[in-house]
Amino acid sequence: MERMIEKEQERSGGSKKTPWPRYEAAALGFRNYWYPALLSRRLGRKPVSLRMLGEDLVFFRYEGKVYALQDLCPHRGMPLSQGKCEFPGTPTISCCYHGWTFDITNGQLVAAITDGPDSPLIGKVQVHSYPVEERKGVIWVYIGNGEPVPLEEDVPEVFLQPDTVVASRITVRKGNWRLAAENGLDPVHATYLHRTAWVSFLLSFPAWRGRVVPDIDGRWVGYKDDLVWECEYPGLGRFPRSRRWWKRIPFGAGDTIVVHLRLPGFLRVTNWPRLETDHYEWYEPIDEHQYRYFQFKVRRTSGLGALWFRIEYQLLWRWLADKQFNDQDKWVIALMEPFYAERAGWNKERLFRQDVVLTTWRKFASENARAVQDRCTS
Amino acid sequence: MERMIEKEQERSGGSKKTPWPRYEAAALGFRNYWYPALLSRRLGRKPVSLRMLGEDLVFFRYEGKVYALQDLCPHRGMPLSQGKCEFPGTPTISCCYHGWTFDITNGQLVAAITDGPDSPLIGKVQVHSYPVEERKGVIWVYIGNGEPVPLEEDVPEVFLQPDTVVASRITVRKGNWRLAAENGLDPVHATYLHRTAWVSFLLSFPAWRGRVVPDIDGRWVGYKDDLVWECEYPGLGRFPRSRRWWKRIPFGAGDTIVVHLRLPGFLRVTNWPRLETDHYEWYEPIDEHQYRYFQFKVRRTSGLGALWFRIEYQLLWRWLADKQFNDQDKWVIALMEPFYAERAGWNKERLFRQDVVLTTWRKFASENARAVQDRCTS
Amino acid sequence: MERMIEKEQERSGGSKKTPWPRYEAAALGFRNYWYPALLSRRLGRKPVSLRMLGEDLVFFRYEGKVYALQDLCPHRGMPLSQGKCEFPGTPTISCCYHGWTFDITNGQLVAAITDGPDSPLIGKVQVHSYPVEERKGVIWVYIGNGEPVPLEEDVPEVFLQPDTVVASRITVRKGNWRLAAENGLDPVHATYLHRTAWVSFLLSFPAWRGRVVPDIDGRWVGYKDDLVWECEYPGLGRFPRSRRWWKRIPFGAGDTIVVHLRLPGFLRVTNWPRLETDHYEWYEPIDEHQYRYFQFKVRRTSGLGALWFRIEYQLLWRWLADKQFNDQDKWVIALMEPFYAERAGWNKERLFRQDVVLTTWRKFASENARAVQDRCTS
Repeated sequence: MERMIEKEQERSGGSKKTPWPRYEAAALGFRNYWYPALLSRRLGRKPVSLRMLGEDLVFFRYEGKVYALQDLCPHRGMPLSQGKCEFPGTPTISCCYHGWTFDITNGQLVAAITDGPDSPLIGKVQVHSYPVEERKGVIWVYIGNGEPVPLEEDVPEVFLQPDTVVASRITVRKGNWRLAAENGLDPVHATYLHRTAWVSFLLSFPAWRGRVVPDIDGRWVGYKDDLVWECEYPGLGRFPRSRRWWKRIPFGAGDTIVVHLRLPGFLRVTNWPRLETDHYEWYEPIDEHQYRYFQFKVRRTSGLGALWFRIEYQLLWRWLADKQFNDQDKWVIALMEPFYAERAGWNKERLFRQDVVLTTWRKFASENARAVQDRCTS
Repeated sequence: MERMIEKEQERSGGSKKTPWPRYEAAALGFRNYWYPALLSRRLGRKPVSLRMLGEDLVFFRYEGKVYALQDLCPHRGMPLSQGKCEFPGTPTISCCYHGWTFDITNGQLVAAITDGPDSPLIGKVQVHSYPVEERKGVIWVYIGNGEPVPLEEDVPEVFLQPDTVVASRITVRKGNWRLAAENGLDPVHATYLHRTAWVSFLLSFPAWRGRVVPDIDGRWVGYKDDLVWECEYPGLGRFPRSRRWWKRIPFGAGDTIVVHLRLPGFLRVTNWPRLETDHYEWYEPIDEHQYRYFQFKVRRTSGLGALWFRIEYQLLWRWLADKQFNDQDKWVIALMEPFYAERAGWNKERLFRQDVVLTTWRKFASENARAVQDRCTS
Repeated sequence: MERMIEKEQERSGGSKKTPWPRYEAAALGFRNYWYPALLSRRLGRKPVSLRMLGEDLVFFRYEGKVYALQDLCPHRGMPLSQGKCEFPGTPTISCCYHGWTFDITNGQLVAAITDGPDSPLIGKVQVHSYPVEERKGVIWVYIGNGEPVPLEEDVPEVFLQPDTVVASRITVRKGNWRLAAENGLDPVHATYLHRTAWVSFLLSFPAWRGRVVPDIDGRWVGYKDDLVWECEYPGLGRFPRSRRWWKRIPFGAGDTIVVHLRLPGFLRVTNWPRLETDHYEWYEPIDEHQYRYFQFKVRRTSGLGALWFRIEYQLLWRWLADKQFNDQDKWVIALMEPFYAERAGWNKERLFRQDVVLTTWRKFASENARAVQDRCTS
């Protein structure tokens, strides 16, 4: 373990004395975890290729079940996703170049079309096969080697139960995933950055948060604080300038929102964007400079309630919360990216007392992550 | 020689134990060879600039004859191709910036307009002058230093004889030239990759090739094999699914096609795309990630036969063979490029028994190439 | 000083024996000088962000006066120019992300909105505040540390006096600033490069310049020479081919033009584009591969004379001189850029006797520049 950490530290580029060495090395995220990949309805008969944590994967659906392979023929490096099923009715994909044919259920080479039926390759070549599960309309994949942990270890219970509804939005964003994860957990940016979001017309965010104290609850990193609703800055003025009377009605429930972040990098926001609905978001590295952003709204309901929730989501929260509100985060993360990617922001940043939640997360992740994703895995 | 190979090996990036060190170092191709540059009809009164093997060349035509110089004024590095002939009636080009004037026939500086007629530069400065020959509508240039070998050494006889017709197509393609050369020689990809080409409707490719044995014939690398026309893959099915009855007629002459590859990197396909017509193709490095692709159809004929052949080429083979068929190769070469350029494919590839032809070529090229083109020649 | 030069030499990439080591290291220009930044009329209520010498600056106007700060919030590296004044009536800017609020007059943090009024950051954080002066419609900024030299040290007197008129044009151009500066000083390129400029129809440039001798006049580097108006190149022909009779009339005043270059990199052309009008141009590095090009036409006049001069400039010189004539320089500088940026042109260039003016400038700059701008200043 010590040697592995040292090797990971070397990859981080030599900033040897950081208090969170494995976190700083994790530009491509953490390995040996289950990640969401895509929505069930996006995967039909055509294979879907995705880059995740710097690796190329291809997803197949065969007789209803989902499979994932490394999207790289070992022969000459062609993407398998460019191939086709040459033998209809079999769970196989044939590489477009020389017809190397793999069993999509386990990655084993079962034929090499241009090498005849007696090909000595058979049984000797395989591509990595990723464990896959499909739940609540989401396809999950285990990025790691060896036996995967149970899905239940990494995916919150609500995604696995029958009586919950999950509404989702997936986008690709610029910036390293850690900047997005830290932004999600950050207790105080909402106060200022999101003051102009449309939902903030009704919803109150505190003027600032006093005594912010990190709070690690099992696998979740969160915080406790004292909300201060109005504030006078001497010589400058009030912030917010005026607190509308209707915001004093406990309607928006700004003080019921609770935020927690968890490995390998996903957030739970309780009671967001409204009471009795929780929000989950995953920051999934595509490469060092892009991440796939999963937004899930989850409610425990079914039947007509579920239908109503889906309508409410499509009409309201998808646009007000997932898009307009969170696009403000998208904006700042893209603006931060050059500072951390080109100008050694990890060493140059000047954190303040409210950032103790972020540094707690960094240390927690550095110490508890199962493995750091290497830049040269595939 | 030993030291040169070592130096070349270093450039290859340290994979010291490769069986084909000079080939692996030859990302920019091999030096001291004649290469095709452009068609005669493309060079008129205006100079033409081309990047070849990472060097910039400029071609001129003066009183019907073709000349080529390094496209770089030694003074401040301006492309000479941006200049003009300031003294009409003389074989000179003047650099656009300060009027340094070079004799295009030998590269000697003959005047520096802004330095007066007594300029001490005269006779002391020159740019590299490339030996050039024009044959059968093609301009050939010797990329090398010192005295060139005779053109006949490097260019097949058919290009130099009066009673042959040459039809041509030149395009620029993405990918390293070696991937294209290997694809050309590859005995088995046609079976699978080209199964959907339009010419394959009439023409038969074998289901696979048994006992593929490399065959070096003088300067040409080729192979011998046993053609197998139909094949059953146990548990999967037949390939090809059905062999149309008309393919059994020896019309397409799929079994008369013979392929050979030669240094510095060009292919001869005998009886392609039909009997009595041969195909030649050059894979000429532009830089590490692009190559110029020359396709020549050659037939021994003249007079009306020549006219008919040109019409047949323009109506049929240009589209069916040179474009639709070979665009499938263009597609796979561009797809392979990242694997070899960014992911160390030369070390990671997993070759199979049919690739013995390619590894024979790699070793042959590594041992016999006159010189490896350096990345920093100009 | 010795150690500083050594450190600067190292940055230059190891060409240790260059006669102008600090000049070769100055890809980002020279530090501790006043530079023009933008025109007064371009800065209103909205902050303006500019990259200069590789640093990001943001300019503000508050109660008529101009201020400049480093455009980077020290917290997480956000550009301050994306923020806004959250406390109207105060000279402050608040970062868009967490509301860190800076006094624009001195760069001091005066509040952190999300950290409450008792924030321990107050008085402990600041961003670099750049000295700024506004003269003759131009905003000047001191890029350096510590106490600035007086503006009069670096900006010619005509820019600081009431009875002069300044007409200006600012563009961004491709290429390193040194190539542009050298092109400006170069005594002979005008003869050839600009022979086709429209102003050359009336104006005479010499056929070449004999006995070019550098001439350092205080802080200005210039030259003396003998103008030769017609020239015969043996075996080639005359240059220029014919000298129009009207060019012999001393109208264009081609022989009254005098050129001088000065640190940190600006040019004075006396009597250009006509008698009694001087031209100044600054080559201000944006980054290694781009520069901001300031063109100023200056005449000592006022009242109706000033009005007339402005009209003359807009109708005539802006298009004939600043655009059509100098776009020929823009063209060659962009063409030279790859030779110096990618192919080690500083070592490979082959200078001629006329370039003694440039090498004098390079040595002068290397020995006299106050400081070399480091690539990693911010």
